[in-house]
Amino acid sequence: MKTLILGGARSGKSALAEKLAIDSGKPVVYVATAEALDDEMAVRIAHHRARRPSTWLSIEEPLALGTTLRTHVAAGNLVLVDCLTLWLSNALWMREGIHFDAEHADLLAAAGEPGGDIIFVSNEVGLGITPLGEITRRFVDEAGRLHQSLASVCDRVVFVAAGLPLVLKGTLP
Amino acid sequence: MKTLILGGARSGKSALAEKLAIDSGKPVVYVATAEALDDEMAVRIAHHRARRPSTWLSIEEPLALGTTLRTHVAAGNLVLVDCLTLWLSNALWMREGIHFDAEHADLLAAAGEPGGDIIFVSNEVGLGITPLGEITRRFVDEAGRLHQSLASVCDRVVFVAAGLPLVLKGTLP
Amino acid sequence: MKTLILGGARSGKSALAEKLAIDSGKPVVYVATAEALDDEMAVRIAHHRARRPSTWLSIEEPLALGTTLRTHVAAGNLVLVDCLTLWLSNALWMREGIHFDAEHADLLAAAGEPGGDIIFVSNEVGLGITPLGEITRRFVDEAGRLHQSLASVCDRVVFVAAGLPLVLKGTLP
Repeated sequence: MKTLILGGARSGKSALAEKLAIDSGKPVVYVATAEALDDEMAVRIAHHRARRPSTWLSIEEPLALGTTLRTHVAAGNLVLVDCLTLWLSNALWMREGIHFDAEHADLLAAAGEPGGDIIFVSNEVGLGITPLGEITRRFVDEAGRLHQSLASVCDRVVFVAAGLPLVLKGTLP
Repeated sequence: MKTLILGGARSGKSALAEKLAIDSGKPVVYVATAEALDDEMAVRIAHHRARRPSTWLSIEEPLALGTTLRTHVAAGNLVLVDCLTLWLSNALWMREGIHFDAEHADLLAAAGEPGGDIIFVSNEVGLGITPLGEITRRFVDEAGRLHQSLASVCDRVVFVAAGLPLVLKGTLP
Repeated sequence: MKTLILGGARSGKSALAEKLAIDSGKPVVYVATAEALDDEMAVRIAHHRARRPSTWLSIEEPLALGTTLRTHVAAGNLVLVDCLTLWLSNALWMREGIHFDAEHADLLAAAGEPGGDIIFVSNEVGLGITPLGEITRRFVDEAGRLHQSLASVCDRVVFVAAGLPLVLKGTLP
């Protein structure tokens, strides 16, 4: 079962993802794409971490999601990726020598492989005013395309607002 | 019956709130959190006011929503708060000496008391690109958390787009 | 049948509109409101155009949508307008001597005429943080009002996220 959870900032999307992961009864590998590069991020990361079960294996992987998914899905884990928005930002800009197209293609290939349990969490960022600046528009466009691509290979797509799920594809238990 | 109505700018959320208030048949206390601090706000306030029944009691209360709710709900009124987004902005920044945490806790406590008829209107602001600036991110985060907290104590949560309601929790008549 | 399709950037709203147009079996007039004023727009326009059937009549009409709709709807075509957001931007600011109120009223009048097959595509832009600047707020407000007005005369309103439709009014085939 593959699930894509979309929502705005502080919409409750991570909490829903974590609940679905717990309820699955499977061993969970939690893949954080965030890195504690400044104090504000460190607080956000700590806030999220305190909520997660201690039995989960937690990994920080800002870039190589395709490889990470293949490894841990093949071992029979449910892999929870939180969140794709930061991965996209990392892959597009924050690293020298990163080949976005290759990382992107590898993520989509890994997500599209049959079977496996994955929950993707991502921010919906395209419903505000079109931002000034070519770089920001690129980010919004790539996020939209990524969500469409992943939604097409996921069994379930849920939009979360005010902590409440709205099912766009599939069903919730 | 407690209702939270979320939506974007000019989405029709206030009109829906006012329709639900009228259809309830109860005496209505309308709590405006906006103050006419400049011409643009004065025009917006007048536009909203012209639409409301003259029998409603209208109050301007930019900050002390908890106290206001307790007083008027206990008297048997339906209290319509429009909107929480401005209250949040007022409580976070626009007043000296305001203790946001206390006002916030008092609002949630009043909203969580059993019984009572309340309709909250609030802007969904978290579905665009993450804004630059720590202050704006704080606002988006607090808005998201507030919506989650209120949604959990409301009987009904409705998202409005293009004047059309999308029920996230409960049912519409 | 009149349809309004709303969604964020790269949400799949144009693809849904084009699928509905093809599935209608009617002759299609495609009205592009975009003009290739810079390289970025030229790439976007070319990307959209490559996807459309060659049998469609394509028109570039940045402003006079009311007149365009009347002409081609009366001739028995399904008219697909993509997108209203750019039209709004054009009508509000990009042209000297444009009377926004008149163009706006004419669009609503043409859309409200009984019968006819029209699909409108528009960006939802009001779900992010309220932008700084009176001009941007005006744009967001006018977009919200336009969506409400058109939604009230359309038989079907669909919100698209991650390529997945969420029906707000009417039904999808």
